[in-house]
Amino acid sequence: MAKDKKKVEAITSMEEDFTKWYTDICLKAELVEYSSVKGFLILRPYGYAIWENMSRILDGMFKATGHENVAMPMLMPESLLKKEGELVNGFAPEVAWVTSGGSEPLEERLAVRPTSETLFCDHWSHVLQTHRQLPMKYNQWCSVVRWEKSTRPFLRSREFWWNEGHTIHETAEEAKAETELMLNTYADFCRDSLAIPVLKGRKTDKEKFAGAEATYTIEAMMKDGKALQSGTSHYFGDKFSRAYDVTFTGRDNTLQYPFQTSWGASTRLVGAVIMTHSDDNGLVLPPAIAPIQVVVIPVAQHKEGVLDAAYGLADRIKALGLRVKTDDSDQSNGWKYAEYEMKGVPLRVEIGPKDMEKEQCVIARRDTGEKYFVPLAELETKVQELLKAVHDDLYDAAAKRLEERTHTCETMEEAKAMVEEKGGFVETMWCGDLECEMAMKEKAGLTSRCMPFHQKKIGPCKCAVCGKPADKMVVWGVAY
Amino acid sequence: MAKDKKKVEAITSMEEDFTKWYTDICLKAELVEYSSVKGFLILRPYGYAIWENMSRILDGMFKATGHENVAMPMLMPESLLKKEGELVNGFAPEVAWVTSGGSEPLEERLAVRPTSETLFCDHWSHVLQTHRQLPMKYNQWCSVVRWEKSTRPFLRSREFWWNEGHTIHETAEEAKAETELMLNTYADFCRDSLAIPVLKGRKTDKEKFAGAEATYTIEAMMKDGKALQSGTSHYFGDKFSRAYDVTFTGRDNTLQYPFQTSWGASTRLVGAVIMTHSDDNGLVLPPAIAPIQVVVIPVAQHKEGVLDAAYGLADRIKALGLRVKTDDSDQSNGWKYAEYEMKGVPLRVEIGPKDMEKEQCVIARRDTGEKYFVPLAELETKVQELLKAVHDDLYDAAAKRLEERTHTCETMEEAKAMVEEKGGFVETMWCGDLECEMAMKEKAGLTSRCMPFHQKKIGPCKCAVCGKPADKMVVWGVAY
Repeated sequence: MAKDKKKVEAITSMEEDFTKWYTDICLKAELVEYSSVKGFLILRPYGYAIWENMSRILDGMFKATGHENVAMPMLMPESLLKKEGELVNGFAPEVAWVTSGGSEPLEERLAVRPTSETLFCDHWSHVLQTHRQLPMKYNQWCSVVRWEKSTRPFLRSREFWWNEGHTIHETAEEAKAETELMLNTYADFCRDSLAIPVLKGRKTDKEKFAGAEATYTIEAMMKDGKALQSGTSHYFGDKFSRAYDVTFTGRDNTLQYPFQTSWGASTRLVGAVIMTHSDDNGLVLPPAIAPIQVVVIPVAQHKEGVLDAAYGLADRIKALGLRVKTDDSDQSNGWKYAEYEMKGVPLRVEIGPKDMEKEQCVIARRDTGEKYFVPLAELETKVQELLKAVHDDLYDAAAKRLEERTHTCETMEEAKAMVEEKGGFVETMWCGDLECEMAMKEKAGLTSRCMPFHQKKIGPCKCAVCGKPADKMVVWGVAY
Repeated sequence: MAKDKKKVEAITSMEEDFTKWYTDICLKAELVEYSSVKGFLILRPYGYAIWENMSRILDGMFKATGHENVAMPMLMPESLLKKEGELVNGFAPEVAWVTSGGSEPLEERLAVRPTSETLFCDHWSHVLQTHRQLPMKYNQWCSVVRWEKSTRPFLRSREFWWNEGHTIHETAEEAKAETELMLNTYADFCRDSLAIPVLKGRKTDKEKFAGAEATYTIEAMMKDGKALQSGTSHYFGDKFSRAYDVTFTGRDNTLQYPFQTSWGASTRLVGAVIMTHSDDNGLVLPPAIAPIQVVVIPVAQHKEGVLDAAYGLADRIKALGLRVKTDDSDQSNGWKYAEYEMKGVPLRVEIGPKDMEKEQCVIARRDTGEKYFVPLAELETKVQELLKAVHDDLYDAAAKRLEERTHTCETMEEAKAMVEEKGGFVETMWCGDLECEMAMKEKAGLTSRCMPFHQKKIGPCKCAVCGKPADKMVVWGVAY
């Protein structure tokens, strides 16, 4: 297959430098561009389209479970942010402050939202009156700002786009069920739309969200073996309700505090897709979120009937409800093949004069490079079958990696050696002490990713660090 | 019809106080709530759902005409904003400034975007190389901040949600065609989805967008006769390209500056819908953007079979692709009727034991209050027919008002007297001098809304202010 060598060679290989390979894909697949403000990203059309597909699918899942979208202000007064001590301590070092509006200095400075719990609580304190209004299950799609010191496209930037769900409930049980429901929603989305298997579990106290009583997480393993926290769900109890004076008249006519949750997933997921599926030829996208699912390339397009044949195939594919593009530009076939490989388009359909004679077309899979000669009559069946195969094979490869590179160890030394040699995650027993968690970080370079919901007992059930009896299994890793 | 008097009485009547009537609807229909930052709004679920419907329809129209969504940063350096003199002079008094990030003061302060021309230009200056990349037709959905002195829900707030389209083209002709296309897109959207007729035209130099060579506008007339600018489209020539050094290699191999446009419509449109269609019982929504298009109310729902019958009707209506809600709560019928009137739901379907006996249901129109006894077999036909009638009748009433309250005058004195007596718009000839436009404002209290595309000659074609020969017809009004 002819290729535009220059373009392909411009990507650093994954093996040579994973970090540079990642950034190369972000830029060369035209997902993002750096802006004139350090650490702030521009989502270009192709990158935004991926996020738009993700958002649309997630939004449908949120609505199907009874959530409503709202929009809160992007600015909040410092005094409001400060009402809940842990939250402000967690976020204050990362806040961007607005100090003047127009030509006037402000009496009180305003925080650009780093997250919106305080805004939702303040709103609820004004509108909530009775248990009849509960639950309130809200979500918003927006960008937030956190003044991170070092930044990388999608993974850590000073502005990122996300959904933040915020809900209040009559009882603690309902709120806890909500955190579980939404964590599962994120996990299902990763599996069904992103072809990414995730590990579900609870964060340790050290790693949980500022102010939360419990944080649940989904953790994915990237191709370099590192962990990417891909979505979180928090249970707050009635702590924020008390801090912000959110109350309602209960069924027993007493004044009560509602129980609260929040949950979020962000443009980080684009980073997760890149580092889970892509290769040295560029991006590889799972079909569900690919802006173009099938690209049709007319071969020798100046020959009579070729363009019409290509348009005809595209129309048939579009009629399946798929996102299809015909590239009838005057670029070479080599350029086109390289371009759509770089952009991770799952299937490429080629048709030329010879194919037309044989009443066939060629379908090439982006993920495996396999080529199929497909009778024209079987186009629809084959395209759908192959798209499903792409998704399933991407998922299976990632699941195999997650399984093979999750190691079971009994001691910290063993864990350290295993991650240094093979990369990936390690699971060990843990006594629950912060000191042991800190030691794991300082001595082995590993942070706790989560205490998986599916716990198992390892060896004699002793803490990998201190050796005391331990009843918790923790998964550790090096995290983005 | 029984009603919850308390709730209905809580709205100020339009006649008594139009401004208060408007605000009452915004709050009591639960569209918005004030936030803890002065001039910043919270879009509550029902208000957001209206905007979401508007956005979804507009987004489809933008994509159908080849536009792509992107996301630009919410912050921009002061130096970038200042590169184009007119723009910064226009917006500087309204900018919110970020002066510290985390605990560090910033070397250069950052503007929270009031509009994003400068960000797009800066981006294009980095990525544009050749004419083959043109046109670039981008759009973004976001919120922007302008530090307005006095604010009102939807009409003027310090943060508002909008689309801002930004495009660059190879030639001036293409760019001009784009501004026209997008103005027509907005006008068609107002007509087909909001049932609002608009006046299309060009702004005078005094009223045009800061830095634009030409600004086109759609102006709608509210029930109180005032004008609401409802969407604008700007042509910049190559002025910003030159200021921001956006260049490309042309077909003739020379370095050229592209020609630029931008266009926007905002949550102001929600205000336009309220003040065009609503009444003293609350909101009236055109079906295309109503979050709930049909509400089904089971009457005497404790009686056997009533609830199932109601759910059955709702299922049939949903199968038409409509947004339907069954209110099976234990509130009284009177409360329910008042509630959905307040919320502007276009059709209410009632079914009770007597209706079931007669194999009928009752359908009530929100806009006219008319009730229809509909045989159950004809439900689908009648619902669709009535929704169309609601839209058409709302549009016709607004079009009639626009026509009847647009007065043709030959002098400023006449124009002043006419608007004072009858309200609405006046059309006069205008010589084109700024002084005459200013006089119209100072002496008659009228601002120029636009020079309509459909020009006509009035009387002896003399300027209504100075009496000199005049070849432009201007429509004047009192504007929101």
